[in-house]
Amino acid sequence: MVVLVRPRNPLNIGAAARAMSNFGARHLRLVNPYAAGFREARSAVGASALLNNAQEFDSVAEAVADCSLVVGTTAVRNRALQDPVRRLNDESASAIRTALRSGRAALLFGSEKIGLTNADFTHCHWLLTIPTDEQNISMNLGQAVAVCLFGLSRNVVDEAISEQIEPAASGEIEKITQGLYEALKISGYVKPGNDAVSEKKVRRLMLRFNLQAMDAKVLLGMVRQIVWKLRQDAKGYPFTR
Amino acid sequence: MVVLVRPRNPLNIGAAARAMSNFGARHLRLVNPYAAGFREARSAVGASALLNNAQEFDSVAEAVADCSLVVGTTAVRNRALQDPVRRLNDESASAIRTALRSGRAALLFGSEKIGLTNADFTHCHWLLTIPTDEQNISMNLGQAVAVCLFGLSRNVVDEAISEQIEPAASGEIEKITQGLYEALKISGYVKPGNDAVSEKKVRRLMLRFNLQAMDAKVLLGMVRQIVWKLRQDAKGYPFTR
Repeated sequence: MVVLVRPRNPLNIGAAARAMSNFGARHLRLVNPYAAGFREARSAVGASALLNNAQEFDSVAEAVADCSLVVGTTAVRNRALQDPVRRLNDESASAIRTALRSGRAALLFGSEKIGLTNADFTHCHWLLTIPTDEQNISMNLGQAVAVCLFGLSRNVVDEAISEQIEPAASGEIEKITQGLYEALKISGYVKPGNDAVSEKKVRRLMLRFNLQAMDAKVLLGMVRQIVWKLRQDAKGYPFTR
Repeated sequence: MVVLVRPRNPLNIGAAARAMSNFGARHLRLVNPYAAGFREARSAVGASALLNNAQEFDSVAEAVADCSLVVGTTAVRNRALQDPVRRLNDESASAIRTALRSGRAALLFGSEKIGLTNADFTHCHWLLTIPTDEQNISMNLGQAVAVCLFGLSRNVVDEAISEQIEPAASGEIEKITQGLYEALKISGYVKPGNDAVSEKKVRRLMLRFNLQAMDAKVLLGMVRQIVWKLRQDAKGYPFTR
């Protein structure tokens, strides 16, 4: 579950709820939210139910009382923190997911202004930080929630979704090569006496395209139409009419 | 670089800039932003310089002209898209980082309302999707930017070094597209009344070839020679001689 501690801006609460909904997190808890009327946050697209069901608590202790793992988030990596700080990566994500299998885990985010306090940290088993650029380590609350939940959901089901692509057969590529080569001869691109070099050049070029079967078919149709037109023109001009 | 296509809400533009700053991305481009005064967005904490330097463009084609890899983002995974869709994971992130080593890569995000259009997709080499819960696949723009840039910045250290091949810039591929399209019109491959469909078809085809810079140069020369010949023929016949 996500616990927002003293959030100030209803837009950010809504954004956090939206990100939770995007990544399949269901339970939102709020500790002393400053924002009145946050449940109507318009930024919570697709997450109004989640926002309506959000629970409010008076203290961090109460909000995490039923959790077996409590992880606080922080932008600061190098200050003298007593608590261990882990980066958001597959390892830390896996630790949180493991805890979720046997109980409840809470991910805490502090207020927009100051983040979590040292007092809040005392409730955390460990701290999580998003690896950011040193020039700007301060993330927007809603964006930090989105990145953390994405990081936690990663690689859970990472199967490929694009279908198998059928590559073009060499015979098809050769037809394109021959067609294009003829077009190049008729149009004067291939200079007389230099035929062999250019045919190879065209073939190599076509092979480097790594054509898919369907694309090869389309390209062959295009090239043949152009060759047909060039031949028509060559036939009609200058000898007839 | 991040390219926001027709963004509507200045808060989201600011949030995108802030996330870029968090993850070390430097260049923001905007295509037809609806939002006036977005450069003053208060949500761009720590990213006002980045926002001030954001460049505006009138079209996607212009915004990505100097990029050798163009990746569009989409929430929709299962609709009949011609373009390959990859999930945001180490593999797709690595593909983008590889491109960044030898040229410029653009990550496109569509408007809050409708995302990127099919016309936008024709400028993309492939599409990227954030693996979200099926119940709510629609992410907030600023959060989607944050998650993507976090995904791209992960594990930067452990990637394999691949060889240096200079990929073709989108502007060069567009020249080939336009040349080939003209050849197809003159030769009758493109049927009247069906112009738009075929131009997109040609652009997608060219992007799928993953052209190297040198090959693009050769191919452009070929196409231009063919177009020149077709034009000559069209001029000379049947009206002169």
